[in-house]
Amino acid sequence: MKKRILTGARPTGHLHLGHYVGTLENRVQFQDDYETFIMIADVQALTDNFDDPEKVSKNTLQVLQDNLAVGLDPKKVTFLLQSAIPQIAELTIYYANLVTIARLERNPTVKDEIKEKQKFNEGVPLGFLMYPVSQAADITIFKANLVPVGEDQLPHIEQTREIVRKFNSVYGEVFPVPEAKVGETARLVGLDNNSKMGKSLNNAIFLDDDAETVRAKIMSMYTDPNRIRATDPGRVEGNPVFIYHDIFNSNKAEVEDLKNRYVKGQVGDIEVKQKLVVAINSFLDPVRERRKLYEDKDLLLDILKFGTNRAREIAAETLHEVKTAMKLFDI
Amino acid sequence: MKKRILTGARPTGHLHLGHYVGTLENRVQFQDDYETFIMIADVQALTDNFDDPEKVSKNTLQVLQDNLAVGLDPKKVTFLLQSAIPQIAELTIYYANLVTIARLERNPTVKDEIKEKQKFNEGVPLGFLMYPVSQAADITIFKANLVPVGEDQLPHIEQTREIVRKFNSVYGEVFPVPEAKVGETARLVGLDNNSKMGKSLNNAIFLDDDAETVRAKIMSMYTDPNRIRATDPGRVEGNPVFIYHDIFNSNKAEVEDLKNRYVKGQVGDIEVKQKLVVAINSFLDPVRERRKLYEDKDLLLDILKFGTNRAREIAAETLHEVKTAMKLFDI
Repeated sequence: MKKRILTGARPTGHLHLGHYVGTLENRVQFQDDYETFIMIADVQALTDNFDDPEKVSKNTLQVLQDNLAVGLDPKKVTFLLQSAIPQIAELTIYYANLVTIARLERNPTVKDEIKEKQKFNEGVPLGFLMYPVSQAADITIFKANLVPVGEDQLPHIEQTREIVRKFNSVYGEVFPVPEAKVGETARLVGLDNNSKMGKSLNNAIFLDDDAETVRAKIMSMYTDPNRIRATDPGRVEGNPVFIYHDIFNSNKAEVEDLKNRYVKGQVGDIEVKQKLVVAINSFLDPVRERRKLYEDKDLLLDILKFGTNRAREIAAETLHEVKTAMKLFDI
Repeated sequence: MKKRILTGARPTGHLHLGHYVGTLENRVQFQDDYETFIMIADVQALTDNFDDPEKVSKNTLQVLQDNLAVGLDPKKVTFLLQSAIPQIAELTIYYANLVTIARLERNPTVKDEIKEKQKFNEGVPLGFLMYPVSQAADITIFKANLVPVGEDQLPHIEQTREIVRKFNSVYGEVFPVPEAKVGETARLVGLDNNSKMGKSLNNAIFLDDDAETVRAKIMSMYTDPNRIRATDPGRVEGNPVFIYHDIFNSNKAEVEDLKNRYVKGQVGDIEVKQKLVVAINSFLDPVRERRKLYEDKDLLLDILKFGTNRAREIAAETLHEVKTAMKLFDI
């Protein structure tokens, strides 16, 4: 039997190459080897966007479309909408008894996020502090074995594992203890050499950027700042242009040639960038083609409904087991 | 149209005269004048009994039986099981974004309860701190207008009102702002003169005590401690024997006569107590009769299912409105 993977997608806006490298590429690889559930986490997105629900709603279909565009197959993968699985909320409430406030306040990722968010000046909302508890419910309601995450999500998986162990010890063995699956390339450098590509950092190439936009962004991107002339020897290591070449240029010989000439001062930035434009557009062309197949809003909703219905059946089975273990009347 | 009342019953054990005076009597009066929902709060009971689910489950039917025994009519009143209404959990999660941790920590009743509970030495569980948020969902998912409460519950109703106002202002008017309905006689003195009758205080007359048990409890109960002989003048005010006579003895002339003789030292404690035994057993006899009608576990479950199904329909309608207001896809 295939192991089950749950992975969440926050509907926070259209996705970029950083998402591809950190997450989407893995998802595409996983879809044949694992039983994959991709949850569009609209409820979680509300924890720091509760006052902008339109954004969450709009981005729900956007994120689904981006996932389909990179090659995820709705026949292989179960896409589900978090808010449409009531059992997640129910399990969250039961889990809330198994974790202390103090424990949640020690979560380093949540701490960092609270510091970053100026909007929490009036106090941290309960929903934000407890989102790792909701995540535990997201993962376990489907009895996922593996959760692909970035490094910053590891504290949440540890929290989930603690809750699961506690639940199993108090009420009896219901859940497998899930494991984190940390991706190889967790982060992609931004166009401006910021260590992270991010929408709000204005340093991203989006999956739905057209060819001309990609060209313009790359031609003005950051390279080796110490290189004034094309004849100066340049640095390849840590140079975002070459990081992108390594990842997205399928012509490895061309990349090697450019690197050799770059360190010797035998190639201009313009040529290196022009070849990167071609490489990234070649990478994005099939993504653009597939995107066109999924432009109809009703089709996207149908895909989401289909997966959500399947997910809800599984969630209902799990919740029945939970209630039985907890001696609650399941009426 | 009748106003709607929601009232919760924690399944914490069999009920006593203190519950009758504080809550049940009001419920019986309300059932004709209001559309009454009585929620058996098994989920809330788990917030401080998460490690003893058998107790919660056993007490669920016990509490229902006690409510029926005092004269609540399942054809007039909707009995519902909290854990069987998933929409309550869903709404709780949405409300969690509208209230801060700091605000919850300021709730005086929760603070007192945390101090009382030695079992929270390892830290306050999230579920306990947030139970007033769940209560807000309990009340509003049924769009209740009135919530009969004791004084100690007023902070929770205020919390609910705050959440409702915030929800309505962020997402649009969905909920009526509910009001607390504080009962006249909130507390009944215990057999030992403790200001509160309570199961754990071992000073209670239970609704399911038989006549002989009632007799034994009353004959050994606390009266005026300064009165040594039947010929000593006694105190009526604050004397639990006379407090009970005032409440439960329907023969008001007898009570007046006993009081007059008591203050003059013309009646013994034994006579006063014997007459109280008769009065309380007369009060409990019809309760005992009705209890026999509801001894079958399957019948109790059927009553609970019937009410829960009705409640779930209403909750589903409300949640649909909530999701529409929040721009969530209701799929």
